[in-house]
Amino acid sequence: MTEAKAYAAQSATTPLGPWNFERREVGPHDVQIEILYCGVCHSDIHQVRAEWNHSVYPMVPGHEIVGKITKVGDHVTGFKVGDLAGIGCFVDSCRECNPCKAGEEQYCETGVADTYNGTEMDRKTPTYGGYSTHIVVDEKYTLHISDKLPLEGVAPLLCAGITTYSPLRHWKIGKGHKVAVLGLGGLGHMAVKLAASFGAEVTMLSTSPSKEADAKRLGAHHFALINDKEQMKALRGKFDFILNTVSAPHDYNTFLRLLTLNGVMICLGIPPEPSAVPAFNLVMGRRSIAGSLIGGIRETQEMLDYCAEHNIISDVEVIDIKDINNAYERMMKGDVKYRFVIDIASLRNPS
Amino acid sequence: MTEAKAYAAQSATTPLGPWNFERREVGPHDVQIEILYCGVCHSDIHQVRAEWNHSVYPMVPGHEIVGKITKVGDHVTGFKVGDLAGIGCFVDSCRECNPCKAGEEQYCETGVADTYNGTEMDRKTPTYGGYSTHIVVDEKYTLHISDKLPLEGVAPLLCAGITTYSPLRHWKIGKGHKVAVLGLGGLGHMAVKLAASFGAEVTMLSTSPSKEADAKRLGAHHFALINDKEQMKALRGKFDFILNTVSAPHDYNTFLRLLTLNGVMICLGIPPEPSAVPAFNLVMGRRSIAGSLIGGIRETQEMLDYCAEHNIISDVEVIDIKDINNAYERMMKGDVKYRFVIDIASLRNPS
Repeated sequence: MTEAKAYAAQSATTPLGPWNFERREVGPHDVQIEILYCGVCHSDIHQVRAEWNHSVYPMVPGHEIVGKITKVGDHVTGFKVGDLAGIGCFVDSCRECNPCKAGEEQYCETGVADTYNGTEMDRKTPTYGGYSTHIVVDEKYTLHISDKLPLEGVAPLLCAGITTYSPLRHWKIGKGHKVAVLGLGGLGHMAVKLAASFGAEVTMLSTSPSKEADAKRLGAHHFALINDKEQMKALRGKFDFILNTVSAPHDYNTFLRLLTLNGVMICLGIPPEPSAVPAFNLVMGRRSIAGSLIGGIRETQEMLDYCAEHNIISDVEVIDIKDINNAYERMMKGDVKYRFVIDIASLRNPS
Repeated sequence: MTEAKAYAAQSATTPLGPWNFERREVGPHDVQIEILYCGVCHSDIHQVRAEWNHSVYPMVPGHEIVGKITKVGDHVTGFKVGDLAGIGCFVDSCRECNPCKAGEEQYCETGVADTYNGTEMDRKTPTYGGYSTHIVVDEKYTLHISDKLPLEGVAPLLCAGITTYSPLRHWKIGKGHKVAVLGLGGLGHMAVKLAASFGAEVTMLSTSPSKEADAKRLGAHHFALINDKEQMKALRGKFDFILNTVSAPHDYNTFLRLLTLNGVMICLGIPPEPSAVPAFNLVMGRRSIAGSLIGGIRETQEMLDYCAEHNIISDVEVIDIKDINNAYERMMKGDVKYRFVIDIASLRNPS
């Protein structure tokens, strides 16, 4: 066992603070990664504060992890010491169900081993995430990271990047499609970059006029204000797809009307309360509401390679680990463009 | 102008009764149809009783119409006097928008001319439906009806048939698919017949154990009780598609859980209240909720030809027009297997 330094939540109501724990020895198929950067996902806050079903403490959050391989198991074939590597939202899965066999492990029928606030597949050993100095993971659930891009901007690709890349690929979204992105945050800004990169005509839908310039800088071709009834009316029936990245409670129905015949609204965020959906607005125009969850390992690698080739990273603000609680407060106010990323050097060697 | 005998609602609260009105002269592109049978759709009741947005009186319901051509306009090329013909849910559309040009007139961007409780495309002349002795319609919106099948069983194909056929074709449902049909009524019994005919493995989901034998007679391979928690639990993640034919308020969420990875619940009924949809059950399994509305003229003809070839008709109970108000009451109680069809001879020559 090796000791890891971390920041952990000890309960739903206490701030995160220093905590040490032990990582397992490197097994024959494992790699050990010295963590360099870890992105801060909104779901970290939900889980730290026990806003979802199941929170276990101490909790070490973080599932947007990049670092360097420092040790490999005897049977590891895909990585060597010194390689850059990444870990996303899960560190194992059953490997036997149809989704796992199809390389869509995120939909594992028995449930994946979440990177944190979960357990290994033995359903006993707790998992701890990337707000820590190192991690040990099976190489099959480890991603290769290019050295072409700044690592701090790559970290959020492991969750925000794949969560938007996967549905864009699944629904074959690209040239000739009109796509709306709802919400300009961690997911939204990646959705704009990727959809535009795939050739789609992208419209940012936002409540805030102040976001227009930034949306266009990120690649959006158009911008519309959700609260402006005239603008919304003018967009009725216009979009082939809406990537809905909003996790706050909102009315799906406003946006269903913006879809064209056969249009699909793809929900990536999970609001705490269900939204009311009138069948009328689905039936008229053969519209759909769908959901999509991160992506599998193969597709995550494909996304990372695509981003390296096309020079796509997340817009980030790098923070010290000691500022994590303040970062959470700022995220709650939407005050981040567009992802906080922890420089783990600040955990390894506090100033 | 020619005088038609009909049964009409004079208000939302009065029973239907005899009413005469004038049909237009047969124009150059029109056919005149002597109506032989007209199906009774649940939407007739909704509209007669002003349960939807917009009801105009006097209202002559009926959009499942079969009859015989008695007159054709000078430029009519597809029909001749004596041919069997059918009229479905609409009698015209703009003919210029993308859906119209694609032969999906049901999604006409300006709105179709509904067969009744609507207007012609001049947006002034009211339309009157099939509870009447004859109708005059442009031949482009008139269907050919085979003489191979009993006409009373064909009439409901014009709405219940195409409403279930169209989504089955759109989503390419057939061999290798597990399909659940939710609700065994006018739509549901056609969904079972057609899905089974296309080679899908069909499960009927119903609240009533008494429907099992009938569901299987209609072609369902399996039957499950919605209110039986154990049965529902055993079906989680099992279906590629659910054809949801229920118009009464119900919880979509119960059924979303029964969908497999990438599964789609297709809503054909329009409950009066929106249903609550938690994004979680869409995101987990990349599931969708979609809607579908009747079908276009080309596809309706394809469906009628398919049914003639494969000997598929609706299970009907033929009634006299004077029993229509009682039939509505029985439909409200679900007491019909599975469609009332009015013998229009009883209107033409009352006993």
